[in-house]
Amino acid sequence: MSLSDQGYVRTIGIEQPVLGNNLADSQRLEMALKKELDTDQVHIPWAQLASLPSRLRQWDFQAKAVLFKDRRSWRLTDLLSPGHDRPVLGAAIDIGTTRIVIQVINLETREILGEIGLDNPQTAIGPDVLARIHHSNKPGGLKELQELVIASVNQHLRVLCNEQGLDTNDIFLVTGAGNTAMTHLFLGIEAFEIIKEPYIPCVNIPDTTPASEIGLDIRKGGLVFLFPNIGSYFGGDLLAGIIYSDLDKKEEPCLVVDVGTNAEIVVGSKDWLIACAGAAGPALEGGVSKMGMTAGPGVIDTVSIDPDTRQVEVHTIEEQPPIGICGSGMIDLAAALFLSGMIDIRGKFVPEICKDRLIEQEEIPAFVLVRAEDSGTGEPICLTQVDLNSLTSSKAAMYTILEVIVKNTSGLEFEDLAKFYVAGTFGSFINPESAISIGMLPDLDRRVFEVLGNSSLGGAALMLTDTTAFDRVMAIRETITYIELNVNQEFMNMFSGAKFYPHTDRARFPSVPEV
Amino acid sequence: MSLSDQGYVRTIGIEQPVLGNNLADSQRLEMALKKELDTDQVHIPWAQLASLPSRLRQWDFQAKAVLFKDRRSWRLTDLLSPGHDRPVLGAAIDIGTTRIVIQVINLETREILGEIGLDNPQTAIGPDVLARIHHSNKPGGLKELQELVIASVNQHLRVLCNEQGLDTNDIFLVTGAGNTAMTHLFLGIEAFEIIKEPYIPCVNIPDTTPASEIGLDIRKGGLVFLFPNIGSYFGGDLLAGIIYSDLDKKEEPCLVVDVGTNAEIVVGSKDWLIACAGAAGPALEGGVSKMGMTAGPGVIDTVSIDPDTRQVEVHTIEEQPPIGICGSGMIDLAAALFLSGMIDIRGKFVPEICKDRLIEQEEIPAFVLVRAEDSGTGEPICLTQVDLNSLTSSKAAMYTILEVIVKNTSGLEFEDLAKFYVAGTFGSFINPESAISIGMLPDLDRRVFEVLGNSSLGGAALMLTDTTAFDRVMAIRETITYIELNVNQEFMNMFSGAKFYPHTDRARFPSVPEV
Repeated sequence: MSLSDQGYVRTIGIEQPVLGNNLADSQRLEMALKKELDTDQVHIPWAQLASLPSRLRQWDFQAKAVLFKDRRSWRLTDLLSPGHDRPVLGAAIDIGTTRIVIQVINLETREILGEIGLDNPQTAIGPDVLARIHHSNKPGGLKELQELVIASVNQHLRVLCNEQGLDTNDIFLVTGAGNTAMTHLFLGIEAFEIIKEPYIPCVNIPDTTPASEIGLDIRKGGLVFLFPNIGSYFGGDLLAGIIYSDLDKKEEPCLVVDVGTNAEIVVGSKDWLIACAGAAGPALEGGVSKMGMTAGPGVIDTVSIDPDTRQVEVHTIEEQPPIGICGSGMIDLAAALFLSGMIDIRGKFVPEICKDRLIEQEEIPAFVLVRAEDSGTGEPICLTQVDLNSLTSSKAAMYTILEVIVKNTSGLEFEDLAKFYVAGTFGSFINPESAISIGMLPDLDRRVFEVLGNSSLGGAALMLTDTTAFDRVMAIRETITYIELNVNQEFMNMFSGAKFYPHTDRARFPSVPEV
Repeated sequence: MSLSDQGYVRTIGIEQPVLGNNLADSQRLEMALKKELDTDQVHIPWAQLASLPSRLRQWDFQAKAVLFKDRRSWRLTDLLSPGHDRPVLGAAIDIGTTRIVIQVINLETREILGEIGLDNPQTAIGPDVLARIHHSNKPGGLKELQELVIASVNQHLRVLCNEQGLDTNDIFLVTGAGNTAMTHLFLGIEAFEIIKEPYIPCVNIPDTTPASEIGLDIRKGGLVFLFPNIGSYFGGDLLAGIIYSDLDKKEEPCLVVDVGTNAEIVVGSKDWLIACAGAAGPALEGGVSKMGMTAGPGVIDTVSIDPDTRQVEVHTIEEQPPIGICGSGMIDLAAALFLSGMIDIRGKFVPEICKDRLIEQEEIPAFVLVRAEDSGTGEPICLTQVDLNSLTSSKAAMYTILEVIVKNTSGLEFEDLAKFYVAGTFGSFINPESAISIGMLPDLDRRVFEVLGNSSLGGAALMLTDTTAFDRVMAIRETITYIELNVNQEFMNMFSGAKFYPHTDRARFPSVPEV
C-alpha cells in the first residue's frame, strides 16, 4: 500500500447549484469525483441517481463516496452521508482449489479486521480441477458448482462478520484471486474448453460487476472483481502474487514461483515480465501436484534424519499423533533420506543403509517413516518407491521449468536473481534448505529466498486498499510475456538431468553436502 | 439514416482458437466486435459470458451481434445464432406530457413495423408537469408516477406487438425522448428540484442502462436509452428534434422551434448551436402553453372568416359537431379575427364589426364562434377577451423569444435562416400563414417553413437505426450553448411591441394584408 494513496473511500464536496448554471446534480457529483480522483472517467450507477437530489441537499452537498474501478473507468459504488459512522468494508478472497481464505478489511483505515478459512465445498464434487470441470459440463453441473462455492463464501462471510461484530451489509467491495478454472466456476462461466486442446478460457479479464449478479450477499450495489488470468494454466492467483511481491516495480530481476497444484513462475522486473506455467504435456502430467498439499492436525510437516545415527524425527501439525504426510514434509523427508545416504543419487532406496526401515508393500519397497506403534492410525506410515519416484519427477519438473524460464528464456543465470519469492500456501511451508538439497530449487544464497505466504490473498487485499493496484494488474496483463512450456527433446534432456539428487551436474549445488 | 451506416445488428466472424494463442473466447469476441465497429471500446456484459464457449463452437464461430452504445463504449446487448431468424426489434418512444407514441422498428431492415399512441396515464394524477412533480414529492408519489407510465408503455408495447404478429421478447433496445420532467419520472428519479429555484435536474445525461432496471418488459438484457436534456426547461425531446432535422449538419443557419407546453428553440448550423427555452419568469408564466393542445373528435382545428361577409367557417376533427377549440384552431381564429377587422391591433374585440357575434359572459366580452344550435354541446362555443388576451401574450412571448435568440443572441436577422422547422405535435397543426398574420412567427418566405411532425419520436427512431446518432447527440450536448431567458427591461420592451397585431413595427410583416 503506497502511503500517498487515499484508498477507495473519499469524502467529497459537491459544488452547490446557483441560478445561471444548469448543471444537473449528477454532473456536479461527477465533476467532484473527477476532481477528487484526477480522472476523466467516472461511472455513476443508475441506482445512485433516484434519490440523489434530496440526499445531496440533506447532506449539504457533502458525501462519503465508496469507489472502485473497472477497465473503462472509476466506478461509484455507493454514496453515503458525510457523517456515515458504520465501517465501510471490503472482502478479499483467495479462491483456492482446496482451500478458500477470506479477509474482511476496513476500506477507510485499510486495517484487516478478520480472516476465515474454509474448505472449497466443490471438493465434494471433485478433488481437483479436472474432475470439477468435467462435472461442470454435465446438465446443471456448472450452476451446482457455482452455487456451492458462492453459498459457502456467503455463509463464511456472515460467520466472520458476526465474530467481529460486523455486518455483511457493510461490505461494498469483494476482490478475489484464483486459478483460471476456479475463477470461471466462481463466476458461473463455462470452463470446459480450459481442459480441451487448444486450452482456451472463456474469459481472461473478468470485468468488475455487481456482486449480486453472481449471488454474493453483500451490500446492494456492491461490486466484485476477480483477478484476470493470463491463460488456462496461468491464473489470477499469480497476478495477485506479482503485485503482492512488487515484482513489477523491481529494479533487478526477481522471480516468483507458486508451488500449488501446478508450478507457476514469473520472472522479471519493472522493465519486463516473463511467465510460464507447469502442467504441460505427458512428462509433467500431474507433475508438481502429486506432492500433495492437504495439511491438518496429525499431518507430518517436517522430517529430519540424523546423518550419523539415522535416527528419524517427525513433527506433526498441532503435535497430534502422526496420520500422514503433507507436501512440505515429503520434501523434508526426501532431503533427509538423501543426505543420510538412505537413497542414492537416482532416488532409489539403499537397502543396506535403510536396514529395517525398508520393507515391502505389495512387492514395492517402502520406507517406514513412522512405525505402527507410534502412528495415529495404528498402521505404519510409509513412503513407497512409487511415491518417491513421483516426488523425484515433481522436483525435477520444478527445477527444469525454473531453468527453462530463467536461463533459456530470460537469458539469465540463477545468480542474477535479486529475490526468489516462494508463493502459495504450500510454498510457505517448504523448507528451502530441503528443497535445495534435493535439487528442486537452485542453490542460491539463502537470503535470496523469501516466503510470500498466501500471496493470492495478499494481492486481493492489496486490490482493496491501494487504488493503483487495479491499473498495475491491467498493465501487467498487457506487458507480460507468457511462455507455453515446450516439452521437446531439449526439455526432456534437461529433465533427465534434474531427476538425479540433487542433479547430474553436481557443481550446480556446491552448498549441498557430499554424502 | 445514412446509407453507409450498418445499424446495430451485425453478423460477425470470430477468430478460431489454435494452440499457441491463448486469447480467451471473450477476447476473441471483443476483437471481432472492435474490428467490425472500428472502435477501441466494447463492453460485453457478464450475462453473455456464461455460455459463450459452447455457443461459439456450436455456431462455428459466427454470430449475430445486437449492439448499442453508452457514453463510454459500444455495448454488446445480445449475441444470437448467425441463423437467428426472428426479427430483431427496437422500440422508439415519444414520452409526451399528454400523449405517448411508440414505434416498433426492425433493427436489421430499419423498417417501422407499427405505431401506437396512448394518453400519458400520469394525467390522472396531474394534468401538467407542475402537478405531477408536486405529487412525486409526496411519499410513494415518485414510484407511483413511474409505475403508471412504465406499466402503460409495457401494456401498449404488448398490444402493438400482438397487432403486428411480433413478440416483446424480440425487442432488444428502447429509446425515448421527453422533456426533462417526463424523463426523470420515466426513470423514477427525483424531479422536485426541477421546479424549485435554481431549477436543477438530477440528471442531464441518463446513461444507457438495462431496461429491466426501470421495469420495461422487453428481452432479458435489453437496453434503454433516454435522450439527454440540456437543462430543466430544455429536454431530450428537443435534442431528438435537432438530430431529426439534421440541424447539426446544416451549412446555413436554421431554426427548430418546438411549440409544446413551453416554447423551446434551437438555432444554428454544423458550426454552432444556441438553445433557449420559454417558461422563464412571471411575464411568461404559462405563456405559450395556455393556447391549449388537446385535440380530439369535434374539436375545432381550423377557422376561417370571410373578410368581406365576415362569414365564419370552422372545421372539426373527424368532422363531428363542434365541442371546443384546440391551439391551432385558436391561432387560425385570431388571425381570421384580425384580418377581418373584428379585433384591433391591440387584440381587443371591435364591437361595431363583430356585431351580434359579440356577447357578454359574466361581464366579459366574448366572441361567439359557434352558435348554440350548431354546437355539439348545446352551448355556444365562445372566445372571451380573457382567452384572447392570453393568446396575445402567448404569441408575443413566442415572437419575443424568437427575436431574442435569433437577433440579440445569434446576431442574425430572421431572413438569414435557411430553414425554419416547426416541431412537436402541436406545431404540426399550426398554419404558418395564420401564425405569421398574428405576428407569432416572423414574416418569412413560406417555403422556409417546414413542419417536422413528431420530431421527438423521429429522433428516438433515428437513434435505433443510425449508429452515428448517439455520438451526434453527445456532441450536440457538448457544443450547444444554452441561454437562460433573461426577462429584463429590454425583454419586456420587446414583449410589449410583440403584443400588438401583428407588431408595433408593422414593417416587419410586409406580407400580412392591411385591414
